[in-house]
Amino acid sequence: MEYIENYVEANKERFLEDLFGLIRIPSISSIKDHKPDMYRAAEYWKETLLKAGADKAEVFETAGNPVTYGEKIINPELPTVLVYSHMDVMPVDPVELWDTPPFEPEIRDGIIYARGADDDKGQSMMHAKAFELMVKTNTLPCNVKFMIEGEEEIGSPNLGAWCEQNKEMLKADIILVSDTSMIARDIPSITTGLRGLAYWQVEVTGPKRDLHSGLFGGAVANPINVLASMISKMTDENGKITIPGFYDDVLEVSPEERELLGRAPFNEDAYKKAIDVAELTGEKGYSTPERTGIRPTFDVCGIWGGYTGEGAKTVLPSKAYAKISCRLVPNQDHLKIADLFKTHFESIAPKTVKVKVESLHGGQGYVCPIDIPAYKAAEKAYADVYGKRPVPVRSGGSIPIISTFEEILGLKSVLMGFGLESDAIHSPNENYPLEQFYNGIKTIPLFYKYFAEMAK
Amino acid sequence: MEYIENYVEANKERFLEDLFGLIRIPSISSIKDHKPDMYRAAEYWKETLLKAGADKAEVFETAGNPVTYGEKIINPELPTVLVYSHMDVMPVDPVELWDTPPFEPEIRDGIIYARGADDDKGQSMMHAKAFELMVKTNTLPCNVKFMIEGEEEIGSPNLGAWCEQNKEMLKADIILVSDTSMIARDIPSITTGLRGLAYWQVEVTGPKRDLHSGLFGGAVANPINVLASMISKMTDENGKITIPGFYDDVLEVSPEERELLGRAPFNEDAYKKAIDVAELTGEKGYSTPERTGIRPTFDVCGIWGGYTGEGAKTVLPSKAYAKISCRLVPNQDHLKIADLFKTHFESIAPKTVKVKVESLHGGQGYVCPIDIPAYKAAEKAYADVYGKRPVPVRSGGSIPIISTFEEILGLKSVLMGFGLESDAIHSPNENYPLEQFYNGIKTIPLFYKYFAEMAK
Repeated sequence: MEYIENYVEANKERFLEDLFGLIRIPSISSIKDHKPDMYRAAEYWKETLLKAGADKAEVFETAGNPVTYGEKIINPELPTVLVYSHMDVMPVDPVELWDTPPFEPEIRDGIIYARGADDDKGQSMMHAKAFELMVKTNTLPCNVKFMIEGEEEIGSPNLGAWCEQNKEMLKADIILVSDTSMIARDIPSITTGLRGLAYWQVEVTGPKRDLHSGLFGGAVANPINVLASMISKMTDENGKITIPGFYDDVLEVSPEERELLGRAPFNEDAYKKAIDVAELTGEKGYSTPERTGIRPTFDVCGIWGGYTGEGAKTVLPSKAYAKISCRLVPNQDHLKIADLFKTHFESIAPKTVKVKVESLHGGQGYVCPIDIPAYKAAEKAYADVYGKRPVPVRSGGSIPIISTFEEILGLKSVLMGFGLESDAIHSPNENYPLEQFYNGIKTIPLFYKYFAEMAK
Repeated sequence: MEYIENYVEANKERFLEDLFGLIRIPSISSIKDHKPDMYRAAEYWKETLLKAGADKAEVFETAGNPVTYGEKIINPELPTVLVYSHMDVMPVDPVELWDTPPFEPEIRDGIIYARGADDDKGQSMMHAKAFELMVKTNTLPCNVKFMIEGEEEIGSPNLGAWCEQNKEMLKADIILVSDTSMIARDIPSITTGLRGLAYWQVEVTGPKRDLHSGLFGGAVANPINVLASMISKMTDENGKITIPGFYDDVLEVSPEERELLGRAPFNEDAYKKAIDVAELTGEKGYSTPERTGIRPTFDVCGIWGGYTGEGAKTVLPSKAYAKISCRLVPNQDHLKIADLFKTHFESIAPKTVKVKVESLHGGQGYVCPIDIPAYKAAEKAYADVYGKRPVPVRSGGSIPIISTFEEILGLKSVLMGFGLESDAIHSPNENYPLEQFYNGIKTIPLFYKYFAEMAK
């Protein structure tokens, strides 16, 4: 693997500069004002792929943000790898908690700090550079296609339709994705399961205008008090979600598989210390890794209503809002869950208020079998670079589009993630260690090598 | 009373212009940036009093916002009326719900629309103009003192100390206040009871930073879920507040007095229609007017946490906040209640989070006896102008400083309010009918006349 080491060593500064150029584009997909940035990011990707050695690259329109597609077909008889990633990032609020501006990448102690440093600009740029490495060193052993979308962080609402329209162009043998994490720097792992997601915004309206809490308080329902009470009723004292039918389709994981998953190293004290909480919580009867890996959840992602400024304004507000999400496990259908929640939430509303529930997005869960050639190729590649066989893990995160790929394109995805838990993705001071960035660029060509051999 | 009618008729446009000048100063006491506006308002009041005929007027410094004091002593042997009001106003959020800019007064269909149009710039300006009327028509029958403060809307944190320091200067026989409402345009009423107030801000901290809700959700306590659950536990299914000891000092109102209070006209259908709610709510066993008049309440005035922007960002937030208030009834001590709440709220916090409770302000309740001369004088004055004897009512609102006056100055206050329920005080599109503004200016000189006669 000397050619890999040499090429990375000779080009590492440029690789970083190319990543930084991408990071500097504030491509926040959930904020409409950033639409022009999505096009800038798409063009940036097109140039990146062409410079790396793609035969062609193109920016495709969708009903939402653009998709950049590129490919290099060296021989139609050889297997094809379809690389999937996303160019969009999460919002940066609360921006005051960032130590440096989120779109001005900075390296401190060998770690890149910026929005998207890991998720997923850092991880996707590894694929562009690994591809370049294989092209320039004449070691590319199979065909490669790239599909970089701009709406992953808002649930990929238009990529399914785009895949449907471009099925022929996207034909491949496996999808390769780096948008997940490893257990630790020295414990490589491959994500074999993803949770699904359902996400709603709810609005509770009491009186039609804000009222004086002295003149009306005590006699008129306060929508914040009501919303708080409704939220509190959504889970019971055992951490179970109370929506009728919610668990109906949950595939219970067998005792044998739970035992296997339980072997992944987990240090509860270190985990608590890292996030500074005195006690953990969750569904009764399950361990912490099980709660985040194989069980569904109910989290309020945001809440607001009434007076939230400085000082003590008394008011009985007209409205209260919340953004609510459930992580789902494989076999739970997010559309069914979206309906179950809406029906239940509306049914528990007292007659003193009006309730509106809007489903904002969702996606199905996913499982990757560990006996397919692509998984085994990934396993060998990590082992070469990290010196250890990677552990298969079920992640609590969601990449809703992955299950859509399986439905529409009939392809499994291998999730070769190089993130770390400490990368603070979606949070202030998101970061990505240089070591992981460069290790990723070294691991990916090995995956291609082993995959091409095994798929022969 | 022709001299009153004539003077008001001849000067009504100027009265309005002087009120508008005061309204145009955005004197929001709860927002520190408006501090210079508080001084502008204080100077405006000083000029207003001097022009009306005060012997002297002065702006006094306090530890917070200034107080404007003015007086006219016609004979030390005669009784003295101390007029109290405030020059500060509530914030204007949500400003997008105002039909016209809050600090640009506009008259539509005989109604003034502006922040402070009623509370309390409109109502206080009536006193300045009634005073002017009596001076210019040589009918002032007693001494007058004005005390206009700048911190009423944030709980008058410095006026008590200022009264303590100026006890001698403030000597009087009665305090006269217009900062309350009448039942309706054609049903005059005088407020004889005020609720006390306690107000807190609470902060619930889960993990030390925002987390990915997929990677941590289900295993780490979500501070919004926890805050919602804690809020829901503060009241029970009968609308009772669950804080231990909360009702200990509540003076139960006798069946006889409840019967009397029940005679005040109340139309539940009209009340519900005015605020567009299908059902009312509140403490079991009490009527709507009782719930707002003689019973304490628990209202969340504001709540916020997590992602509140556009679209669907998934996050397990680090913090959630709420602003919480209780209206208290006479005999409940707001300092004791502040402590009871803090102790209880902290005690029900699960160990998965950290909770901070900060008391932001408070004040005691108040009762005005209906057999004192000042009350009877007010009763006669309203009857002359409105053609009906006013009804005594217990208000749900709070003017915490009123009970402080009683403690420090040993004076009762008569609450001659001319606001209407439809004035939307503290809300967008606050308003005040011209008819009430001018009727107030006509009623007040009659109060002085009867009070001076009765106090002889």
